[in-house]
Amino acid sequence: MYDIIIIGGGAAGLTAAIYALRAGMDTIILEKLGVGGQIVLTEAVENYPGFPFISGPDLMDKFQEHAEKFGARIEYEEVTEIVPGPSSHRVITESKEYEGVAVIVATGSNPRKLGVEGEEKFIGKGVSFCAVCDGPFFRDREVAVIGGGDAAIKEAIYLTQIVKKISVVHRRDKLRAEKILQEQAFDNPKIEFVWDHVVERVNGEDSFESITIRNVHDSKETRLDVGGVFVYIGHIPNTKLVNVKKTGNGLIITDDCMRTSVDGIFAAGDCRNTCLRQIATCVGDGALGAYFAGEYVEHVKSSRT
Amino acid sequence: MYDIIIIGGGAAGLTAAIYALRAGMDTIILEKLGVGGQIVLTEAVENYPGFPFISGPDLMDKFQEHAEKFGARIEYEEVTEIVPGPSSHRVITESKEYEGVAVIVATGSNPRKLGVEGEEKFIGKGVSFCAVCDGPFFRDREVAVIGGGDAAIKEAIYLTQIVKKISVVHRRDKLRAEKILQEQAFDNPKIEFVWDHVVERVNGEDSFESITIRNVHDSKETRLDVGGVFVYIGHIPNTKLVNVKKTGNGLIITDDCMRTSVDGIFAAGDCRNTCLRQIATCVGDGALGAYFAGEYVEHVKSSRT
Repeated sequence: MYDIIIIGGGAAGLTAAIYALRAGMDTIILEKLGVGGQIVLTEAVENYPGFPFISGPDLMDKFQEHAEKFGARIEYEEVTEIVPGPSSHRVITESKEYEGVAVIVATGSNPRKLGVEGEEKFIGKGVSFCAVCDGPFFRDREVAVIGGGDAAIKEAIYLTQIVKKISVVHRRDKLRAEKILQEQAFDNPKIEFVWDHVVERVNGEDSFESITIRNVHDSKETRLDVGGVFVYIGHIPNTKLVNVKKTGNGLIITDDCMRTSVDGIFAAGDCRNTCLRQIATCVGDGALGAYFAGEYVEHVKSSRT
Repeated sequence: MYDIIIIGGGAAGLTAAIYALRAGMDTIILEKLGVGGQIVLTEAVENYPGFPFISGPDLMDKFQEHAEKFGARIEYEEVTEIVPGPSSHRVITESKEYEGVAVIVATGSNPRKLGVEGEEKFIGKGVSFCAVCDGPFFRDREVAVIGGGDAAIKEAIYLTQIVKKISVVHRRDKLRAEKILQEQAFDNPKIEFVWDHVVERVNGEDSFESITIRNVHDSKETRLDVGGVFVYIGHIPNTKLVNVKKTGNGLIITDDCMRTSVDGIFAAGDCRNTCLRQIATCVGDGALGAYFAGEYVEHVKSSRT
């Protein structure tokens, strides 16, 4: 029986572990693949304060060492289900079962990928899923944004301050984004729209060179000579394992203190309904989640005696 | 005319600067004293992920260097008033006036001090205002908590997981803290109450030794041999300069995206109505504040043209 079970070993989960362990909580981290989460896909992180320039994997190594300094125990197991109980919760993995007074879900979310040739090879090296993170690496260059929803258009507008020109490539002939965003984008001379096109492949031998797009009507291919591509065709939060209140997109709804709709189950980081998905915000979430999970554990323990 | 004026150069303000500058915003930081905020009073920081052990001033130097790498301009001026306008806001300092499309208030808050002999000398070296930050430095030792409100009792309960014994020293004979916290504290064998006493002085030559407390009725003094003292007699947020919606205690009320009740004025960090005051949470707030301030700036600029 653990005080706190943390599901996910990304920035939010590791921060939660640092806080929980310093608070004297008996804590375990369950991670399905490797520590670090989405951030290990990033070649360069410039916006986590204190590290002006560091690679994603190196930064997450530092987080892991930090958590292990306080005795973090990490088990590599995939959690399939959380079964809530009145004074503790069962966490079921593929091979075992754990029991914890509190659970912090920090399972992150995965950007939906294009699924085309060359994409995987250049993730973090020309293919990005985060303009706020990677935009400044393309200062005064031309980039493409893929998508037509709120996120795509917001990030295209965001990029106008940084890059020279943005081609928004969308598979339909109109946007899904809210009206006000559309108007802002249409009015901005730096944004150009390429309608009815999808990405066919990402080109480049050793380094990113361009993308090839295809017209969805006549299948004609065109090369787009951009320095990078920002993909915004959706996010898939890893939240199937837990039955708490969520948004229509599967994001876990929490209060300001990271409490979900079920007592003793908390969520932190990209898997929750947050305004922004950054290492900086995950770290804030992790601290909050662990603090209020700890408060909950204290409360449950004192009402037992 | 600036895009974004950041008031305060602590963890939240410096993070906001990193984000705003990377986003191409014309940004200035106005700081009244010295960069770093409350954190420079801390000798050891163990819970900012990535730095297992660092002094407060050293960590804030790193934040400052990071912001300056992206061109942060810091002016040392005390802001006296923010005068809101429809499409920009005026920020009045003691000697000048600045104008910004958006303003991020990151002015922090100051813990109320005891105001007794020896206190200043041992801040960060035995006298602490944050159990979550400094509690683990007193593992298995005896400490005192000063105060009788929610914060004092919460932090005393928090400390029970870490230290051997806690003496809660309160100037009255009953607590102000909410009932449920009182019950938890009274039931905990590690917590002892010293009623009707105030701190008279903090003792020690080169290092912290003990505190002397005084009975408020008969003025009798007693020495309390503790390894450290945690002071929870209130917090004073630095928010007089801005006229937005606040709590009864003067904390700025924001939404999840750091927006205040006035368009274009944002708040981040300890000066707002947050659940937890940590470097980790300030960094999250700073990132959010700058992102949504930037979104606001884009919106104002595009509706001008």
